[in-house]
Amino acid sequence: MPELRKDPVLARWVIIATERVLRLADLRFPRAPRHGGPCAFCPGHEHETPPELLAYRDAPTPAPDSPGWRVRVVPNKFPALRLEGQLERRGHGLYDLMTGIGAHEVVVESPDHDRDLGALPLAALEDVVRAYRDRLLELRRDDRLRAAVIFKTHGLAAGAGLEHPHSQVLATPILPTILGEEMQQARAYHDYRERCLFCDIVQQEIDDGRRLVTGGEHMLAFAPFASRAPFETWIVPRRHAAAFESAWAAEQQDLARVLHAVLAALDRLLDDPPFTLLVHTAPFAETDSPSYHWHIEVTPQLLPRTGFASGSGLHVNPLPPEDAARFLRDVAR
Amino acid sequence: MPELRKDPVLARWVIIATERVLRLADLRFPRAPRHGGPCAFCPGHEHETPPELLAYRDAPTPAPDSPGWRVRVVPNKFPALRLEGQLERRGHGLYDLMTGIGAHEVVVESPDHDRDLGALPLAALEDVVRAYRDRLLELRRDDRLRAAVIFKTHGLAAGAGLEHPHSQVLATPILPTILGEEMQQARAYHDYRERCLFCDIVQQEIDDGRRLVTGGEHMLAFAPFASRAPFETWIVPRRHAAAFESAWAAEQQDLARVLHAVLAALDRLLDDPPFTLLVHTAPFAETDSPSYHWHIEVTPQLLPRTGFASGSGLHVNPLPPEDAARFLRDVAR
Repeated sequence: MPELRKDPVLARWVIIATERVLRLADLRFPRAPRHGGPCAFCPGHEHETPPELLAYRDAPTPAPDSPGWRVRVVPNKFPALRLEGQLERRGHGLYDLMTGIGAHEVVVESPDHDRDLGALPLAALEDVVRAYRDRLLELRRDDRLRAAVIFKTHGLAAGAGLEHPHSQVLATPILPTILGEEMQQARAYHDYRERCLFCDIVQQEIDDGRRLVTGGEHMLAFAPFASRAPFETWIVPRRHAAAFESAWAAEQQDLARVLHAVLAALDRLLDDPPFTLLVHTAPFAETDSPSYHWHIEVTPQLLPRTGFASGSGLHVNPLPPEDAARFLRDVAR
Repeated sequence: MPELRKDPVLARWVIIATERVLRLADLRFPRAPRHGGPCAFCPGHEHETPPELLAYRDAPTPAPDSPGWRVRVVPNKFPALRLEGQLERRGHGLYDLMTGIGAHEVVVESPDHDRDLGALPLAALEDVVRAYRDRLLELRRDDRLRAAVIFKTHGLAAGAGLEHPHSQVLATPILPTILGEEMQQARAYHDYRERCLFCDIVQQEIDDGRRLVTGGEHMLAFAPFASRAPFETWIVPRRHAAAFESAWAAEQQDLARVLHAVLAALDRLLDDPPFTLLVHTAPFAETDSPSYHWHIEVTPQLLPRTGFASGSGLHVNPLPPEDAARFLRDVAR
């Protein structure tokens, strides 16, 4: 019998379908062909990107935009939003619009063109996590910007420049829809119960245990109760904190460890599946929110795209999260 | 300069990016390989589907589940939701769930395995529109069901059974998220202005003209102001009506004509692009709503999937709808 489950964070119903029994062998996903390096993100090609915003280097810093970096952040060459200009809002009849002010940056996760996030040594993953935090700390000083989304898409689009391991930071003058909906639900829960929704979820997942994937001292990884897709995994800090950038050093290190374990388990189980990683963190004005709680959502993109879920908001997931978590736990050991 | 536009129906900001100028030649989308018929939806194979729920035939009706039909509706063999059973709601700690009661049907649009919706003669398209209406009228009599989504995905998933032209009807005991959000925005607009949001949009689009694609006496097709994807097209009735099934015969005929024109224009411009078609119609309890207004959204799936838009709710559209509408108008002539 299929089941309808409500995602408590988004207040959305998800269909957990049971009629087609999902076998791992049935999950066939498109693979982007590998082009190989070098590309504009490779060492020695620093002049092919806009000037760097941040880089971590071992040696006493030479000139910027030269090789020797471990992680490097540069502006996106084809930005969806631009920092230059005034933030202007206006109406047009019943429609509302504003100038596309914002920041769009690329975090080059490693000098190695062919080594993806999950295959990096732990110290390198810690660098990536630290770069995320440093960029958030910098961007939130611009008072035209309200929030930032950090995301990574792996194995979906073709092109050499796109296959070099990287994440993106998109800072916006508006609240991205999903973040706004999450804030709203979390606030309503907190108004009534005077507790954080995510803290309660973490506790219930620990008590229940069936959806746990892995965990460390500070972070917990689990398949969410109303998973929208097979093997969707959330990584949530045990300690309440609204903003990613307020994570302690020990939490950042634990995040690197847990993220590594999750990506390695997905790779072992599904052989390098395409996935999307999204950092959900509080808007800049609400980094001390008692109701919001930062977290990371890793969503493998395994089912053929139909446009139905994005058009209707109704997700049909053929794999119960309890089964997904068990598969992942088994290979994570 | 990029622009942020707010979708008045969903209260979502969309980024209309302008940095990468989109040329039609850049739109490369995956094509599902053709398998060819016959399949379970072809005439002579009626016994391979569950017993039919509806069929239109020319001859004085022979036995059901025999050939000779023009349009045929059958239950989905692998339904996401099932009609059998009790609708039971329960909690599990802080989580909420219910049994997966609902209906999942397939509308086989034509006996011809290889002739898709846009290539059907007008009379056949009218049959499809009538079948949508007849199923909605039937399904809304089941008081366990709250709403139905009718949708069609074209050219995205492979498999012979999936390539025979068909639509799907999914009736649910819950409100699908997007429909719920649309209802809420439309209600808020109506509460304040005492006018229907969609009626106002139709009027503004007619007055403005830049985003119009085509239109008939009863229906209007245009690229929405905050289009989430290149060539997204909405078909909206000029007359206020909340429910698809309350369309007059003349409106249904005009819908068939306008839908044909839109699909033919997309085909001529983009050479059989993959697309999703979604009928947005009022929940069964609100078919007389003064604030909601049924419509159809046709969304070509031309950009590579990244999972970013569905994860963040932030859509980045590289083609302003004014340009998309002009392209479509030019080939529609």
